[in-house]
Amino acid sequence: MTTRNFLKDLISKVAAPVDPNRGARRRAGEVAALCHALMSERGEVSGAALARDVLAAYSALPANAHTPFLHLLAAEFSPDAAAIDRAAAAFAGGRSPQLLIKLQQAVESPRQELFRRLNVAPGATAVLVDLRRRVLRELRNSPQLASVDADLAHLLASWFNRGFLKLERIDWRTPAIVLEKLITYEAVHEIAGWKDLRRRLAADRRCFGFFHPALPDEPLIFIEVALTDRISDAVPPLLDQDAPVADPTRADSAIFYSITNCQEGLRGVSFGNMLIKQVVEQLSREFPRLKNYATLSPIPGFRAWLDLAARDNEAVATLLPALKNRDWQQDAAMTATMRDKLMQLCAHYLLRAKKDSAPLDAVSRFHLGNGARLERLNWLADTSPAGMQRSAGMMVNYVYRLDEVEANHEAFVREGSIATSHAIKKLARDCDLTGRHTVARNTDAN
Amino acid sequence: MTTRNFLKDLISKVAAPVDPNRGARRRAGEVAALCHALMSERGEVSGAALARDVLAAYSALPANAHTPFLHLLAAEFSPDAAAIDRAAAAFAGGRSPQLLIKLQQAVESPRQELFRRLNVAPGATAVLVDLRRRVLRELRNSPQLASVDADLAHLLASWFNRGFLKLERIDWRTPAIVLEKLITYEAVHEIAGWKDLRRRLAADRRCFGFFHPALPDEPLIFIEVALTDRISDAVPPLLDQDAPVADPTRADSAIFYSITNCQEGLRGVSFGNMLIKQVVEQLSREFPRLKNYATLSPIPGFRAWLDLAARDNEAVATLLPALKNRDWQQDAAMTATMRDKLMQLCAHYLLRAKKDSAPLDAVSRFHLGNGARLERLNWLADTSPAGMQRSAGMMVNYVYRLDEVEANHEAFVREGSIATSHAIKKLARDCDLTGRHTVARNTDAN
Amino acid sequence: MTTRNFLKDLISKVAAPVDPNRGARRRAGEVAALCHALMSERGEVSGAALARDVLAAYSALPANAHTPFLHLLAAEFSPDAAAIDRAAAAFAGGRSPQLLIKLQQAVESPRQELFRRLNVAPGATAVLVDLRRRVLRELRNSPQLASVDADLAHLLASWFNRGFLKLERIDWRTPAIVLEKLITYEAVHEIAGWKDLRRRLAADRRCFGFFHPALPDEPLIFIEVALTDRISDAVPPLLDQDAPVADPTRADSAIFYSITNCQEGLRGVSFGNMLIKQVVEQLSREFPRLKNYATLSPIPGFRAWLDLAARDNEAVATLLPALKNRDWQQDAAMTATMRDKLMQLCAHYLLRAKKDSAPLDAVSRFHLGNGARLERLNWLADTSPAGMQRSAGMMVNYVYRLDEVEANHEAFVREGSIATSHAIKKLARDCDLTGRHTVARNTDAN
Amino acid sequence: MTTRNFLKDLISKVAAPVDPNRGARRRAGEVAALCHALMSERGEVSGAALARDVLAAYSALPANAHTPFLHLLAAEFSPDAAAIDRAAAAFAGGRSPQLLIKLQQAVESPRQELFRRLNVAPGATAVLVDLRRRVLRELRNSPQLASVDADLAHLLASWFNRGFLKLERIDWRTPAIVLEKLITYEAVHEIAGWKDLRRRLAADRRCFGFFHPALPDEPLIFIEVALTDRISDAVPPLLDQDAPVADPTRADSAIFYSITNCQEGLRGVSFGNMLIKQVVEQLSREFPRLKNYATLSPIPGFRAWLDLAARDNEAVATLLPALKNRDWQQDAAMTATMRDKLMQLCAHYLLRAKKDSAPLDAVSRFHLGNGARLERLNWLADTSPAGMQRSAGMMVNYVYRLDEVEANHEAFVREGSIATSHAIKKLARDCDLTGRHTVARNTDAN
Repeated sequence: MTTRNFLKDLISKVAAPVDPNRGARRRAGEVAALCHALMSERGEVSGAALARDVLAAYSALPANAHTPFLHLLAAEFSPDAAAIDRAAAAFAGGRSPQLLIKLQQAVESPRQELFRRLNVAPGATAVLVDLRRRVLRELRNSPQLASVDADLAHLLASWFNRGFLKLERIDWRTPAIVLEKLITYEAVHEIAGWKDLRRRLAADRRCFGFFHPALPDEPLIFIEVALTDRISDAVPPLLDQDAPVADPTRADSAIFYSITNCQEGLRGVSFGNMLIKQVVEQLSREFPRLKNYATLSPIPGFRAWLDLAARDNEAVATLLPALKNRDWQQDAAMTATMRDKLMQLCAHYLLRAKKDSAPLDAVSRFHLGNGARLERLNWLADTSPAGMQRSAGMMVNYVYRLDEVEANHEAFVREGSIATSHAIKKLARDCDLTGRHTVARNTDAN
Repeated sequence: MTTRNFLKDLISKVAAPVDPNRGARRRAGEVAALCHALMSERGEVSGAALARDVLAAYSALPANAHTPFLHLLAAEFSPDAAAIDRAAAAFAGGRSPQLLIKLQQAVESPRQELFRRLNVAPGATAVLVDLRRRVLRELRNSPQLASVDADLAHLLASWFNRGFLKLERIDWRTPAIVLEKLITYEAVHEIAGWKDLRRRLAADRRCFGFFHPALPDEPLIFIEVALTDRISDAVPPLLDQDAPVADPTRADSAIFYSITNCQEGLRGVSFGNMLIKQVVEQLSREFPRLKNYATLSPIPGFRAWLDLAARDNEAVATLLPALKNRDWQQDAAMTATMRDKLMQLCAHYLLRAKKDSAPLDAVSRFHLGNGARLERLNWLADTSPAGMQRSAGMMVNYVYRLDEVEANHEAFVREGSIATSHAIKKLARDCDLTGRHTVARNTDAN
Repeated sequence: MTTRNFLKDLISKVAAPVDPNRGARRRAGEVAALCHALMSERGEVSGAALARDVLAAYSALPANAHTPFLHLLAAEFSPDAAAIDRAAAAFAGGRSPQLLIKLQQAVESPRQELFRRLNVAPGATAVLVDLRRRVLRELRNSPQLASVDADLAHLLASWFNRGFLKLERIDWRTPAIVLEKLITYEAVHEIAGWKDLRRRLAADRRCFGFFHPALPDEPLIFIEVALTDRISDAVPPLLDQDAPVADPTRADSAIFYSITNCQEGLRGVSFGNMLIKQVVEQLSREFPRLKNYATLSPIPGFRAWLDLAARDNEAVATLLPALKNRDWQQDAAMTATMRDKLMQLCAHYLLRAKKDSAPLDAVSRFHLGNGARLERLNWLADTSPAGMQRSAGMMVNYVYRLDEVEANHEAFVREGSIATSHAIKKLARDCDLTGRHTVARNTDAN
Repeated sequence: MTTRNFLKDLISKVAAPVDPNRGARRRAGEVAALCHALMSERGEVSGAALARDVLAAYSALPANAHTPFLHLLAAEFSPDAAAIDRAAAAFAGGRSPQLLIKLQQAVESPRQELFRRLNVAPGATAVLVDLRRRVLRELRNSPQLASVDADLAHLLASWFNRGFLKLERIDWRTPAIVLEKLITYEAVHEIAGWKDLRRRLAADRRCFGFFHPALPDEPLIFIEVALTDRISDAVPPLLDQDAPVADPTRADSAIFYSITNCQEGLRGVSFGNMLIKQVVEQLSREFPRLKNYATLSPIPGFRAWLDLAARDNEAVATLLPALKNRDWQQDAAMTATMRDKLMQLCAHYLLRAKKDSAPLDAVSRFHLGNGARLERLNWLADTSPAGMQRSAGMMVNYVYRLDEVEANHEAFVREGSIATSHAIKKLARDCDLTGRHTVARNTDAN
């Protein structure tokens, strides 16, 4: 019996363990044993078959065996610390390229080679992306998984290099297996079903995504665009499933109203910046009449910051009770009273609320970091419960002008300066608040 | 003027330098400067444009500027040795995953990040493969490029992971841009032109290659197969452009008569093993009647080894003068005399001549390492000048049986034992030579 | 002003006609005028542009202008009767190939050339298929459109020749634009939405359709297949959206449970026969374990025939009141009583009820004409309202055995004999009914 | 034994006939018998298999059996003359749509249905195109095949309707199986091999063809375009395999220097007109700087016409002896003497030599009929033997301006007027010749 058959046999014998955790640990151990086999000399000639075996065994793991397996990955496939010390000492003594190479080899986790060998099996790339997702979720409880995360993050960032991605238009001719992913993943404005999706892919809309050849049915990120007459100042018309389809060749504005990162396992591998710019280029070729490229974005941190600001500022504090009224936005008198003050406060928030010299608002940070301009604040642009709760119903347009993004970005990175319209500057000036009132950063940008 | 425009401007001003080497160094320096810009904070937002600029400037380098540029890559994009020492000391002190991660980051060359950022530009992957080719060629003269080579080798091995490659059939429906590469690259039996190529792609032949999505017009490796009646014992019938096309459904043997690695820049990234096994699987599905999968391979190291063996052995020495006669193989009396002795010596060479416990012959090493069986020695199977000069006209069949390759491989790796037919064993036994007579290894396998 | 511009101008001037019918006739006349222009000498050089103009004008016709336009097609693009008489007389006098060719040209409607010239415009083929649909609908009221119908039918049968169709698998990777057509067109067992559709395309199902290159988003006909363990005897399990997905490689039966002709405009261009046989071949290659290929078909004419039979036969007549009870099938005592009698009557109906020597039942006629065998009658196999109303809840399996379809078909066509199982024969023998009780044929087969 | 097996059996028994013509007739008869079977009731259910049998038997016909088979097609699959007479009489008496339809059915050859049923077999469309080629070749000797030709021509014109063709760019990424067809078919300027072909597909060239979905590897017609600086006045620079590749984005002219109809069997199904206009549109989108779209065309009928003109005109007659000198064009004094006179005569030929009111020159007729303008006569533009022999070395540029082709075409068709440059008009005016000197038309246009 070859080792491989022996291990397969072993796995098949596992039936109905008495102590579920002991069973889970045993199952995790069996997958780890297959991983060791894959790393052995047999891996070279039977690599493809062994990789398939690992994947099959891993995929058959019961739910409670996943965490034990992650810990085995951390414990059994890390580099040899003593060997690192030796290689580091040799390098400190010699400084030759060869000694550097040896040190680099010593510090690289065997896990990386394991993942590379696993990737030979069909479907493995998707499994590795999913493995990273599990690691990220477990990381809070198990900081010792940091190395596993770092290895996966490093490998996936290399494999999902922008040069290997394809920008693809997503429309009603796209396979259903991809389209249903949009419904599942959409993070900004939920897609209510196939009818809603169909409207979002109609002739006056565009949707683009990045795809990797190893995951042909999985968008990595996608962006939804409405082609409109003037820059949109409210989201409901964009989400109206029964809105008549306009003639896109007459539009002057492209509104990026939703951008969604799909793969949790690729967190930190950033595509959004490249996607927006490439979509701007593509749209400008298809529709020469377009002159505005703008987002219609939420301001996710505004309300939380406002609560904080209210602690030091009485004027702000007096606003809050009204905001806590359900449906205050339907009261015309109320909105008339609130409008100026809230817009001023929001402009102040967007321009001056910082954390570590970067804007406090995550979405703002993302678009300004991409070189966009903060163009317009829109009153009652999103009166959905989420919109009211996060942004007091306001939304903001960030405008992308290809000829100024680089200068904006440099000024933003170097000096923290924000490209802003006069209108927003004026609103911020009219705000009598001082101080930054920083809260914890949101982690995700739209 | 932005930095980017400034640099572009600078490049365009360079015209007709007086001292060619000074000019070359300056040009190399300009490309390196663009590389630094790509690594700077601007790289994030303008990465795609900067990467394109680097590529354009690099592609426009004059021939004598390439070596200076490689040296700049080695000098200016290596990791900071002092920072490595500090990180190594911290890790020696602490042993936490975080400290390991920091050390891993410290030892990774900035070059790797540079190459990853470059890869964003269209066509960059091909340029990086070609850069590795240049580094390999320069390495003999400039050992300090070893780190550059190691970085590229590591990155390319990761990117060209088998999981990202596609096995594709190559036939007369393949685009001409790919087919002309076969003519250019074929390394074993030169392709004389389009007519020769067309015959090699006819109905009784198969050709397969591995392709990477980023290099769609470039085979990485390809294998040529003839579907024959019985295992071929000579190469001329396989290369006859005017041979009638046989019915492939009646063939019982698939003869792998040529396998070519195409990309010098991917040296060390091995595909051959996987290719052969996958082709065997594919052919067995298409042609259920096939029962033999065999190579018809050269024995590239035999004659050189024979010269060496002649130094210690008089009987061998007496054979050599005859072999130096041009066209001795056309003299029937001569071949009758030589046949037994040379075949015995060749069997001895294949079974017993070793270097570091591995077979001395590179082709043999490759196929035995893949788990193949050494099946048959063929007298006067390749009487071309190259065939006579390298192998005294002999060729060998290595046979692949999927159900024994793993066991063969393990026995070969662990004990150095070679799966061999009785006929070859007998020939080797009949050889009165002793000793191994090792010469320097050939580096490439067929 | 060229004629073309003149006509375009004319069209654009048409605004708000007073008498809607007069306006409709005028609009129809304008399209006909463009058609005449397309047939003139200008058609040769400006054919593509003129064809586009005709299509645009036709597509912009108001609803009430379509019938007038069809009448203009009949009146103004028919062959010249006097010229036909002359050519017929010449042929009667001479009998040469040349005179025959002239007669053939004389009788061919100029409409055919008009349709061929129109087809040059993008999207025209779909418009012509739709035009045929309109003609068919109008034909009952306007028998003078028979010639227009004959011309379109002749042309479309030639263009949609089976040799130009592609059999394509339809699954969850198919573009949504095609999938939504399945939901729209499915004629046998309505598809309740995307979830229902997704289940019908799962791993234990197959769906195939014929497509024409000029209508890439339009299935012409599609068939739904369930891969099951034994021949299905009831439809609800096949339509259960929440049924677990079985392993198709273990199935022994392929059940054709729905076949739908999609294009009303292609009525009479038959694909169904070819589709079934090609799907059988394809499935047998993919799943070597399959041994039964059977339909699960409705018996659409049974109940209507039963009502008729009841007029002459008292025993039958006494059954009817019970059948008219809503939900009688849920009364166990009742079904026990009815089962034998109804099954005998249905077997009699399937084997002996004829019209013009062909089976009265349309679905039966279709499958028996294809060479299928009448295999099994299934009691309460479809208790949906439609199933109860048409077939008293029964369904039938027709079995396709590739090695007997030709003989079955010949026996069926020549002698009207029906390949039948013993079980059904016995049921029919046990039926005490005599006579054929023919009602008007249903026109469509499942 | 079924009929089908019986016939197959019959065929297989045919071996080594004594009288070759008797054997040929027998083989032809067997194919015809299979055709009759395909037309019988069995054709409906076993159509696909029978069609394959017919094709296989037809493809296996020996060379001398083809003509007998064509005669059987003419004799046995023509319409029934008596039935035609009856249907014609009924129509003369009744004039209803139904009677017209019956007459149309009576006159249609059963051959058409035979061809449509044959087309169901894979590869049949190509066989039918080839069958037409054979009919055309045989037609001169066998005028009774005119009906077979008319049927095939009618059917193929319908199937190869422009609406079903795809315009495809042909370049170095095109499959070799298509590219080798260009080498085979090129009719204007022979392609010397793969190197020549590669140059004609380089970046400063374009090549387009029409393809039909049923013949994916077969261009129906293709056009070769050079993107140049100014309108080319000579062909050798365009055919120079070693000419440096120019930057196509800087070109101001697109020169159509070769257009080839590939399928003899599609003679009379015209694509050329549509191809040129579509290519002009496509090029203008890709290269906005292009302002001239011109041919560089031969004048195939000029020398033959000149010989004829010399009979009546002494001045012309005196030129001829010089033209008969081999290589007169290399004698500078000679060319100086001849230039003006020959160019005047050629302008006269192009503008005034007619047959039936159309230009005598076939190429001229084609391009002027398409609405092109006769722009420039080029002295010694093609000094190849063929060029000297047909056109005394001259070539002509026809210019396509999309905004005038329709008007040019109408004027040409209605009044025979030719859009011409002043330079050519002047040359023609300066010619002292009168009369038209018509010779038999060339049949093919470039």
